[in-house]
Amino acid sequence: MYLPPFEINILGTSSAIPAFDRFPTAQLIHINGSYVLIDCGEGTQMQLRKYKLPAARIDVVLISHLHGDHIFGLPGLLTSLSLLQREKELLIIAPKELEEIIKLIIKHCEAKIVYPLKFIYTQTKEVKCVFENKKFKVYSFPLIHRVPTTGFVILEQERERNIIKEKIKEYNIPIHQFNRLKKGLDAEDEEGNVIRNEDVTIPPLPPRKYVYCSDTAVLKDIPEIVLNPDVLYHETTFLKEHQNLAEITQHSTTIDAAMTAKKISAKKLLIGHYSSRYENLEPLLIEARSIFENTVLAREGLRVKI
Amino acid sequence: MYLPPFEINILGTSSAIPAFDRFPTAQLIHINGSYVLIDCGEGTQMQLRKYKLPAARIDVVLISHLHGDHIFGLPGLLTSLSLLQREKELLIIAPKELEEIIKLIIKHCEAKIVYPLKFIYTQTKEVKCVFENKKFKVYSFPLIHRVPTTGFVILEQERERNIIKEKIKEYNIPIHQFNRLKKGLDAEDEEGNVIRNEDVTIPPLPPRKYVYCSDTAVLKDIPEIVLNPDVLYHETTFLKEHQNLAEITQHSTTIDAAMTAKKISAKKLLIGHYSSRYENLEPLLIEARSIFENTVLAREGLRVKI
Repeated sequence: MYLPPFEINILGTSSAIPAFDRFPTAQLIHINGSYVLIDCGEGTQMQLRKYKLPAARIDVVLISHLHGDHIFGLPGLLTSLSLLQREKELLIIAPKELEEIIKLIIKHCEAKIVYPLKFIYTQTKEVKCVFENKKFKVYSFPLIHRVPTTGFVILEQERERNIIKEKIKEYNIPIHQFNRLKKGLDAEDEEGNVIRNEDVTIPPLPPRKYVYCSDTAVLKDIPEIVLNPDVLYHETTFLKEHQNLAEITQHSTTIDAAMTAKKISAKKLLIGHYSSRYENLEPLLIEARSIFENTVLAREGLRVKI
Repeated sequence: MYLPPFEINILGTSSAIPAFDRFPTAQLIHINGSYVLIDCGEGTQMQLRKYKLPAARIDVVLISHLHGDHIFGLPGLLTSLSLLQREKELLIIAPKELEEIIKLIIKHCEAKIVYPLKFIYTQTKEVKCVFENKKFKVYSFPLIHRVPTTGFVILEQERERNIIKEKIKEYNIPIHQFNRLKKGLDAEDEEGNVIRNEDVTIPPLPPRKYVYCSDTAVLKDIPEIVLNPDVLYHETTFLKEHQNLAEITQHSTTIDAAMTAKKISAKKLLIGHYSSRYENLEPLLIEARSIFENTVLAREGLRVKI
């Protein structure tokens, strides 16, 4: 069965201080022809170029919170898109204060933005659908951090049912009846005989789900929308031995992330946002895998297909 | 004769849109134990790490103008220095509005800056000494661009005269008289005989000078302070064939830069700030050299010793 692309491209994996050639947080999600940028640390535009990803095609930018390592690449990206004569609207879904920062920079830096720039403000009180098109929805949900922070869920729209190829001839299904069948309705052949949907179609694959948890202490009340993701990205700033630091700074350890992956029945766990104290990341992977086997280490340039 | 270090470290050479692995403008100048950052395009902190340059030791940041490709690396650098527990003051010499931008970002991004941050505003009316310590002075001078822009001159302080080693024995020069001689005064030996300065010392090398011309149309009225530099950095956004673009955007071509180098009797010309339309930079070098032979192409990681 054809599965349209749903891919996570990792652009940065460092926490606040970029070290060991790691860049601060950013991910480009490609979902069936749409491009969503999640967070935009310094250097994101260079990383997009390096990995030959289409910056010009970004439709939506999701910003989890206003710490610099998640937003300092945004002014440069917005300016470059303008210099490249972008025409289509860019939607930024972010905490309210980001708009003030961007507008002040545009004002003082003569950074004319030639395309429409639209802001939607996130809030950290409850789960909210912040974006929807024909292919997917985006939900924001509250995380626990030193400043207002949200995670994001990218969820495919329900797909249509699939007509079984062999049944088309067998039941003489007229082409103009295909749409009814895909929508789950019964159809009719040219003689007026009823074609029962369940006889000629199979249900679509369930919508795929990506959950992004950037910069958070251990989540206690996990909203339903977060459950059962195909991939959970969860920050692991620290090893277990630095749990005290994680608590002080409201970050997570490898163990915290792996426990959450288990709790929400994720199929795969992707970890990142590594502290600059770790040059070698292997111990983080080993620790997470001790709790949740299907863990992957995010690295700059990694592409994860869902 | 011992020459204390005076080095230009190139961190970025792209113009507004970073392309072909080129980073936007930034240079770190090491002058006899002091570090001056000139401009701070996006990714400067990563470039400093990549080339193992001591970000923590930067004393002064000079910002030529407020276009994004010269400042978008500053918030990240300032934040990282704070996270690294910098204690000493950082002086930023820049157009006034930069302070408002940085302060708004600090406010909204919970980017506490734990060290003293001091701003000195540049102006584009006249030449001005904007910084001085025991080793060097910095002058700003007006450039011609779409927004208020200044160039910078980094000029060593006059050095003391050098006592000729062999003469110390010959004239029985007491150690406590060395300082007088170094300052150009006559001295006395233990018997009270006059030691004439010119007999036992030689003059110091003339102070070295670096001139930085970022983002400018062709300079017409060149201030005296700019004359006779050891190295002139001059932007060359365009080849001669794109002179019309240079005029519209108030930038320079290779020919403009080389003519200026000749006019001010520079010893060496360093070119950079290349348009993203040029992947191969060799033609820019050839063109500049056709007018000014001692031209060097700035590239990320290049170190030029003065």
